[in-house]
Amino acid sequence: MARTGRRPGKPDTREAILAAARDAFADRGFDKTSIRAVAADAGVDPALVHHYFGSKDQLFLAAMESPLDPKELVAQVLDGTTLDNLGEQLVRTFLKVWDSPAGKPAAAMIRTMVSKEWSARLLREFLLSQILRRVAAAAIVSEPDRRFPLVASQMLGLVMMRYILKIEPLASASHEFVVAAVAPTIQRYLTMDLPPA
Amino acid sequence: MARTGRRPGKPDTREAILAAARDAFADRGFDKTSIRAVAADAGVDPALVHHYFGSKDQLFLAAMESPLDPKELVAQVLDGTTLDNLGEQLVRTFLKVWDSPAGKPAAAMIRTMVSKEWSARLLREFLLSQILRRVAAAAIVSEPDRRFPLVASQMLGLVMMRYILKIEPLASASHEFVVAAVAPTIQRYLTMDLPPA
Repeated sequence: MARTGRRPGKPDTREAILAAARDAFADRGFDKTSIRAVAADAGVDPALVHHYFGSKDQLFLAAMESPLDPKELVAQVLDGTTLDNLGEQLVRTFLKVWDSPAGKPAAAMIRTMVSKEWSARLLREFLLSQILRRVAAAAIVSEPDRRFPLVASQMLGLVMMRYILKIEPLASASHEFVVAAVAPTIQRYLTMDLPPA
Repeated sequence: MARTGRRPGKPDTREAILAAARDAFADRGFDKTSIRAVAADAGVDPALVHHYFGSKDQLFLAAMESPLDPKELVAQVLDGTTLDNLGEQLVRTFLKVWDSPAGKPAAAMIRTMVSKEWSARLLREFLLSQILRRVAAAAIVSEPDRRFPLVASQMLGLVMMRYILKIEPLASASHEFVVAAVAPTIQRYLTMDLPPA
């Protein structure tokens, strides 16, 4: 993922739209970015953006080159889940996805995104608009906005240690070990009485 | 921190040593790297490396351009601490350091280091040789090697969410909030019966 803008000499409309989208989402955030504005920045008709990418959500995921579909992931975590086993279900789904072939490009995406200020803003928008919003809509937990950053801190830290820095013995630990160690943390963040801010 | 090697035309001995050290520590790890080998790679006398940088620990910190002195930090965490309050003391010390002027360059260092495979190896060596080894030497916790990656996952994830992605409300939360939320997690990782690997 490079913030290149249009390549001179060889105009590529699809790439121009994605570059404009990356800039817009990073600079203004997901909510304040419209397909119309991205189209204007790229010098194309909004209908073409819809034609290539569909919804704003889909444009955003294409701009991030996300190897994961957060909609599907959140649905998988919430499928048949109650608040009682949400922590465990989250950690299990997470491990399954990150230990699948999609895990490697996902780790590469996280690496690249945290490395720069503007792309870190994209990752933040991703977490907030694609993950938190869907979890909040499911209305299983109270005060999702306050719990989400705590949950995400443990899950992102797990990604760092197990899949990016690959620190043993965690990097090679069984799913059962990770679930037994980490699910209670997540469960507590999801259900504890929140302290004052 | 760039993995540049010697600049042609304008030889800079200090920089040549640091570049050789970064390569060696990333490729071979901290333990298998000797000052003698770094000196040979840089084409200088080992005495010169000692003269410029002192010990292998100090050479490593200089090569990483670490804005934090892990020896001092670990001493601060362990100062007057018993196992009963180690989780809280760790989180408090951590917040104090990351919210100090050293936090900004420290966040920049983490960003840069995770972005590439070879520099991520340096960060791993840093955590293992500079932090874990000192904590283990203090002999306060049992099985430090197995607990450390869990503790580090929560702390590094906290750095990501609060200082790098800056996700609210965690980014602006009081130290008291973070301690109340996160210290029990750390305390549990430090003291729980570890599940089988």
